[in-house]
Order: sequence, then structure tokens, then C-alpha cells
Amino acid sequence: MQNVDKLRTIFLQYLEENCFDQAPQGLYEPVNYILSIGGKRMRPVMLLLACQMFKDEVNGALPAALAVEIFHNFTLLHDDIMDDANLRRGKPTVHEKYDTNTAILSGDVMMIYAYHYLSKSPNHLIVKLLNILNRVAIGVCEGQQYDMNFETSDTVTILEYLHMIEYKTAVLLSGSMEMGALIGGASGEDAQHVANFGRDIGIAFQLQDDILDTFGDPEKFGKKVGGDIIQNKKTFLVLKTLELAKLADAENLRALMQTPTTNPSDKIQQVKALFNQYNIRNIAEKKMDTYLSNALAHLDAIKVVDDRKTEMRDLAHYLIKREV
Amino acid sequence: MQNVDKLRTIFLQYLEENCFDQAPQGLYEPVNYILSIGGKRMRPVMLLLACQMFKDEVNGALPAALAVEIFHNFTLLHDDIMDDANLRRGKPTVHEKYDTNTAILSGDVMMIYAYHYLSKSPNHLIVKLLNILNRVAIGVCEGQQYDMNFETSDTVTILEYLHMIEYKTAVLLSGSMEMGALIGGASGEDAQHVANFGRDIGIAFQLQDDILDTFGDPEKFGKKVGGDIIQNKKTFLVLKTLELAKLADAENLRALMQTPTTNPSDKIQQVKALFNQYNIRNIAEKKMDTYLSNALAHLDAIKVVDDRKTEMRDLAHYLIKREV
Repeated sequence: MQNVDKLRTIFLQYLEENCFDQAPQGLYEPVNYILSIGGKRMRPVMLLLACQMFKDEVNGALPAALAVEIFHNFTLLHDDIMDDANLRRGKPTVHEKYDTNTAILSGDVMMIYAYHYLSKSPNHLIVKLLNILNRVAIGVCEGQQYDMNFETSDTVTILEYLHMIEYKTAVLLSGSMEMGALIGGASGEDAQHVANFGRDIGIAFQLQDDILDTFGDPEKFGKKVGGDIIQNKKTFLVLKTLELAKLADAENLRALMQTPTTNPSDKIQQVKALFNQYNIRNIAEKKMDTYLSNALAHLDAIKVVDDRKTEMRDLAHYLIKREV
Repeated sequence: MQNVDKLRTIFLQYLEENCFDQAPQGLYEPVNYILSIGGKRMRPVMLLLACQMFKDEVNGALPAALAVEIFHNFTLLHDDIMDDANLRRGKPTVHEKYDTNTAILSGDVMMIYAYHYLSKSPNHLIVKLLNILNRVAIGVCEGQQYDMNFETSDTVTILEYLHMIEYKTAVLLSGSMEMGALIGGASGEDAQHVANFGRDIGIAFQLQDDILDTFGDPEKFGKKVGGDIIQNKKTFLVLKTLELAKLADAENLRALMQTPTTNPSDKIQQVKALFNQYNIRNIAEKKMDTYLSNALAHLDAIKVVDDRKTEMRDLAHYLIKREV
């Protein structure tokens, strides 16, 4: 069994061996650019980890791992255009560094290459893997659409929000891990538990991201704390407050989110005060914990010896820090 | 055997049965819009026709036919953004009717649905069909990139141009027909002849389009004659003239293409005069004819009784009108 770091190294070597060094350069150079500026490679690593739960040899899962990493980066190219984002992982986004047409077309070809690498997986699994990638990819597009719809909607519910983050974020992690498990030789039932583990970890991770964006330690968080508040994002924290708050407080929060920000730190203070008044951090952490527990229950249910689950369990606890 | 019109009717019914009537509406309504505004449905019809050469029953080929039609329309959505086109088949383009983000995301989900429908093809062929769609789709993206590169290049050769139109246009027709043949039960060798027929017909069709854009009968052509000249497009006619012309004439053509157009009909006249001076229409028609002959030779080589090829041969002659 190889640990997470070793699996990441194996993946990075495969990524390098398969870099896009072909013509036309205008199409493929941006692909290499976005793939080379890093990220934690969470999806391919967890795909390989899922494979390894069932089989020591993970080489057969490398093409699928590359497929999900390319797919994820394709979504970044197009999402960054839609969100008008200038920076990604501290570097200029593709449509900033090149132009929008380049980001569209290079993104398109990346999506196709995701299918191309998927097709290099073991032959007897192609149909199953193709169906998973199709389902995941459709989910991701629908999630992005719901996310954009939410920006202009005044009536987003917690349930709709959880549904959106499941589609936009969790479904790709879930599908990646299901693919890994199947390539490792998992039964349909075990692969489903792996998929559910991935989905629940993905949702827990997004909830944690919502919490840390407002309550995180600025030293550790990496992004600027309070960014979601400044951008008026309808996170779990906001939606839960609107659900629980007295009318006056809810209207106060809505007003804060609709008024142009003149003093950012003042706005962050005021919104945080409302969150605190309704104990929102604690509620959000409990919700996150429920998803983590559900994920771990699915891990427990997988029919392999417990030793083979250690890496995955450790990673879950590393990704999601229980604080209650 | 069913004729082209009957096959188109069968396809249109299948398209209607599979329309995108699901949520989120913001994502899928533009998909229905672009799929409903028509077009000749050439690719799915020729896929079904290729299937029918080998098998009377074409129902098994309908999902693949829908896949290539959805894929083609996805390319229209994204190409129209890149080309900043306002109209498509006489109606507003998706990014004009909705917005650019919608055209990007709805295009993305269409590409995924192409793979989704492809996966509903006969199970034992999925891997082969997937490889064809991947190869085709990569070719189409590369063709679009070369087409954009050519706009700013002064050194495009005839060979590069033919390569570009093969990728941007012919490869999808070729791949569609190859898929149809395989689903019909064609041998690998016959499927390759069908693919080559589709490729050569596709290139001939594009060359004919270049010719008609300048020399066509305004009554019959549908588009405004001379549009390519006004847009300074580097068509076969232009590139061949630059190849053959005396230095002074070539420089004259280059100058005409680089100067802002003040008098369109005057410019069309002058460029046409240069074409005529070098007998370019005739040369282009001969080139088109060579591709048509090559296509028909591939059709002849297919190992089925000649009766089964009649519809395809008639269609080839209907699409490409020999005039010499």
C-alpha cells in the first residue's frame, strides 16, 4: 500500500509523461499551463487511493486519474470565464493570460481529452466508466447553472444549496472514487459505498470551506478571510441565518448583502455578529460532522480488511477537521 | 431501403422524443433552441444512410445519429462566440439571444450529451465508437484553432488549408459515417472506405462552398455572394491565386485584402477579375472533382451489392454538382 504522497508522485509523473506537447501550440499551450500550475490533485489521488483499497497495483487507474484531473481543470477554464476571475492558484487565469476564445477552445479540447484518457482504462470497464463520467459531467454543468441562478435568487433554501454543492463539487470526487474502486476490482456494492464516501466527504469539505472563509485562522486559511461575505455569496452560513433569524435580523442581513460595500472589515464584522447571534458556526460544524460521519460509515461498510482503509480514513480526518 | 427524406423524418422524430425538457431551464432551454432551428441534419442522415448500406434496420444507429447532431450543434454554439456571429440559420445565435456564459455552459453540456447518447449504442461497439468520437472531436477543435490562426497568418499554403477544412468540417462527416457503418455491421475495411468517402465528400463540399460563395447564382446560393471576399477569408480561391499569380498581381490581391472595404461590389469585382485572370474557378472545380471521384471510388470499393449504394451515390451527386 502506498501513502497519499507516494500516489501523488506517481500521478504527477504520469501527468508529465502525457503533457500536451503537440501542435497547434495555440490550442495546447494553455492546457499545459493550467495543468502545470498545481493544485492538490485531490481527485486523481483519491481515485488512486480508492483503487488501492481493492488492488495493490494502481497503474491501470492512471488514465482515469488523468481523465478526472483534466476534466476538473477544464471546468476551471470555463468557470473562470463565467465568474470573470483573474487569478487561479495565484496565477493569471487562462482567459486573462491568453484570451476568452482561447479559454473556451482549450477548455473544450480538455473535456474531450478527459474522455480520451478514460478510454485507455481496462476495456471491460469502459462502458461503466463512460456512464459515470457522463453522469458526473452533466451534474457539474447543472451545479454551475444552479450556482449562477442562486446569485440572482432571493429564495434559495438550505436543501437547494446542499444539492448545488453536491453537483458542483461533490459529484466529481464521488465519481472519481467510484471509478478508482471499479478499476481496483470492487463489487458494485462496494463501489457504491466508495462513491457515497466521496460524495459525503465532498459536501463536508465544501461546508468546511464556507466555515473557514468566515471563521478561519487567517494564517492557515490561504485565502483572505471574509471573502464570501464581501462577495455576498449565499453560503450555508447565510442561508441558515436567514432560516433561523427573527424577521428584523434577516432583513438586516439581506440589506447588508444588497448594499455596495464601502467598509469591508466593518461589513465582515456586522455579518459575523449576526452569524454569532444564531450560533451559526456551531450549526454548520454539526452539519459538516454529520456528512463526515456518514462518509466514515460508508467506509466501514466496504467489505475489505480494515488495514486497507487506513489511508482513506486518515485522509478524511486530515481533510475535515472535527472541532466539536 | 429508405430514402434520405424518410431517414431525416425518422431522425427528427427521435430528436423530438429526446428533447431537453428538464431542469435547470437556464441550461437546457438554449440547447432545445439551437437544436430546433433546423439545418439539413446532414451528419445524422448520412450516419443512418451509412448504417443502411449494411443493414435494413437503422434504429440501433439513432443514438449515435443524435450524438453527432448534438456534437455539431455544440461546436456552433462555441464557434459563434469565437467568431462573434449574430445570426445562425437566420435566427439570433445563442450568445446573442441569451448571453455568452449561457452559450459556453449550454455548449459544454451538449458536448457531454453527445457522449451520453453515444453510450446508448450497441454495447459491443462502444469502445470503437468512443475512440472515433474522441478522434473526431479533437480534430474539430484543432481545425477551429488552425482556422483562427490563419486569420492572422500571411503564409497559409493550399496544403495547410486542405488540412484545416478536413479537420474542421470533413472529419465529423467522416466519423459520423464510419460510426453508422460499424453499427450496421460493416467490416473494418468497409467502415474505413465509408469513412474515406465521408472525408472526401466533406472536403469537396467545402471547396464547392468556396466556389459558390464567389461564383454562385445569387438566386440559388442562399447566402450573399461575395461574402468571403468582403470578409477577406483565405479560401482555396485566394490561396491558389497567391500561389499562381505574378508578383504584382499577388501583391495587388494582398493589398485588396488588407485595405478596409469602402465599396463592397467594387472590391468583389476586382478580386473576381484576379481569380478569372488565373482561371481559378476551373482549377477549384477540378480539385473538387478529384475529391468527388476519390469519394466515389471508395464507395465502389465497399463490399456490398451495388443496389445498397444507390442512395449514397445519388446523395453525393446531389451535394456536389459537377460542372465540368
